Amino acid sequence: MREVAVIGIGQTKVDEHWDKSLRELAGEAVFAALADAGRESVSAMYVGNMLSGPANKQQHLGAFIADWVGMRYTESMRIESACSSGSAAFRTGLMAVASGAVDSAVVVGVEKMIDSPGDEVTAALATAADADWEVDQGVSFVALNALIMRRYILEYGWKHADFGAFSVNAHTNGKQNPYARFQEGLTVEGYAKAGMIADPINLMDASPMGDGAAAAVMVPLDSLNKNRNGLITVVGSGSATDSLAVHSRTDPLWLTAAEKSVKMAYAQAGIGPEQIDLFEAHDAFTIMAALSLEACGFAERGRAPQLALDGEITPKGRIPIATRGGLKARGHPVGATGMYQIVEVVQQLRGEAHGSQVENAQYGMAQNIGGSGSNIVTHILKRLN
Amino acid sequence: MREVAVIGIGQTKVDEHWDKSLRELAGEAVFAALADAGRESVSAMYVGNMLSGPANKQQHLGAFIADWVGMRYTESMRIESACSSGSAAFRTGLMAVASGAVDSAVVVGVEKMIDSPGDEVTAALATAADADWEVDQGVSFVALNALIMRRYILEYGWKHADFGAFSVNAHTNGKQNPYARFQEGLTVEGYAKAGMIADPINLMDASPMGDGAAAAVMVPLDSLNKNRNGLITVVGSGSATDSLAVHSRTDPLWLTAAEKSVKMAYAQAGIGPEQIDLFEAHDAFTIMAALSLEACGFAERGRAPQLALDGEITPKGRIPIATRGGLKARGHPVGATGMYQIVEVVQQLRGEAHGSQVENAQYGMAQNIGGSGSNIVTHILKRLN
Repeated sequence: MREVAVIGIGQTKVDEHWDKSLRELAGEAVFAALADAGRESVSAMYVGNMLSGPANKQQHLGAFIADWVGMRYTESMRIESACSSGSAAFRTGLMAVASGAVDSAVVVGVEKMIDSPGDEVTAALATAADADWEVDQGVSFVALNALIMRRYILEYGWKHADFGAFSVNAHTNGKQNPYARFQEGLTVEGYAKAGMIADPINLMDASPMGDGAAAAVMVPLDSLNKNRNGLITVVGSGSATDSLAVHSRTDPLWLTAAEKSVKMAYAQAGIGPEQIDLFEAHDAFTIMAALSLEACGFAERGRAPQLALDGEITPKGRIPIATRGGLKARGHPVGATGMYQIVEVVQQLRGEAHGSQVENAQYGMAQNIGGSGSNIVTHILKRLN
Repeated sequence: MREVAVIGIGQTKVDEHWDKSLRELAGEAVFAALADAGRESVSAMYVGNMLSGPANKQQHLGAFIADWVGMRYTESMRIESACSSGSAAFRTGLMAVASGAVDSAVVVGVEKMIDSPGDEVTAALATAADADWEVDQGVSFVALNALIMRRYILEYGWKHADFGAFSVNAHTNGKQNPYARFQEGLTVEGYAKAGMIADPINLMDASPMGDGAAAAVMVPLDSLNKNRNGLITVVGSGSATDSLAVHSRTDPLWLTAAEKSVKMAYAQAGIGPEQIDLFEAHDAFTIMAALSLEACGFAERGRAPQLALDGEITPKGRIPIATRGGLKARGHPVGATGMYQIVEVVQQLRGEAHGSQVENAQYGMAQNIGGSGSNIVTHILKRLN
């Protein structure tokens, strides 16, 4: 397996982009990543996207985007695994370059959510859950996460207010990120006063949707001068699934797919959680940030909120998460999110994270969750010099 | 790049499966492939599917199908590139095993088309074309192919009747395949009398939709005893795109993406068209079979109908195509089709193609087309002993 380096990153702001189409967003991120890599083109493109079929009436995004960015004739395909589509596309690009099938690749995650009617987007998002056994009951993703959070609070004795530290950290970091959807910050009082959506999930527990695209360029490490400054390699990659339906799990408070995928990534990297300097967790809901921290070995079962309350998830803490705003403040353009996480980890490892920089970060981890924990992909990146 | 062998295949009949859901179809093919491979499980699953988002209201098929077949926790993702989704998934599985990221994989192509309303399926299929620049004009895929066929007839001086030999060959071979949707055969007269759909494409120029699933199990060649009988390896793989919109091509009568992908596959295999013993071409329409034969080097530009008229595309001819019925008679469950082609090539190389067996086949090629020639994936398989 050839070692693979990430040599270019690009992203659009997550926003309501009323003036930009899906292909324009994807193009903006791809062009930025190619420019950052100093390349005019690459041998392949892999597209992460979830909603374009049901929400945008446009599939076949591989050829669609390749043609738009002037890469007509280049290999290109779309990868979909609900909200983990971005990281699944990154893993596909990684395997393509590592196998030698292609010499270089750009991976782009893109999602265009804002200009579809709200009910259509909700229905499109529900295609990530089990149509026969969950959606048929009228349950939305917020409701599924609310069921999990309620059980967690009951089981481990937390109060709703204890989860506020996750959101405050995310929004505080989002203030430092010009690509984040929200840059206004958040106080503990603001969290407590937010309107309830699906008890116990309030508006400040939940991440916002948005339009956006993020991209990265990958090449084999041996094609580069290893003395090059700021060289970032992918040292661990793992992917695992769980039951689509939450009710089919023996333990709904444990992200088995996260544990399995992170173990694969740790083993490949030859490290453990203690070496990870920052962790872009999938905080689609505060409860998911907590469960991810536990499944990845950063907190004991049922104890993640304490880590947040103790300030250990901030850029100066033991395990910084949501360092550029996370899904909560940067925003969650679902199929693009996994690629935003990769881009943000690279920024941190390069020392380009400005106001929310984690000092001397060498290992950064990104974990992207599809469905309510049913498809989880983890990557570990390392700064070589 | 590790060499990869295909050690198991499975498929369902292409049919109107009113009594089977998408997951049941996929499961049937996966279980058959695993049984054929003599394995209880594998390390990863890759799913090729086009329509589940817009037509079945169920995406996230990776976790969805993995869980259903008892592979909960196993890596799984969906690959979509319109009608070439099946072969794009196969290429993803190939890269995954070749890279060493996984030790074994099952790839399944699945499509459930019949029980969605016809207008919804037509709209869902149209997501493969350019929503802004083609679909907006009200043009369907049949119409796009009719424009190409009409131009081909005008340019090269053929008559409509000259294309009948493609359909007659496909239906004659389909009679020998219990998994084919149509097993009634077809005569030249039957072709000529078929109702017109979009002039010059009549009902017998066009492939039928259907429900179906086909799967294959892949492992590294070096994990097998090389003296094992009937060992099949993947010796060439290529993938290329073209403009999504037909009107953007400088030459709509030449499948540039087919030419580019087949050249990659030939180069990797170290062979040329003269070594190919059979070719599962993407005969969604008779005109596409003709264009594929030309782009892959089996006929001069504008001359493929002569090959068919001369009987050279039958199992006893120079370059047999649609040997198990092709898209025309086996049926075209869009996202599954690429995997049916792989399964059929393996059947031929193993000598299990019964009434339509190509004698002493050593090299078999499969080529799967997404959109109107905008995403084309080619694989060459070889019988080692």
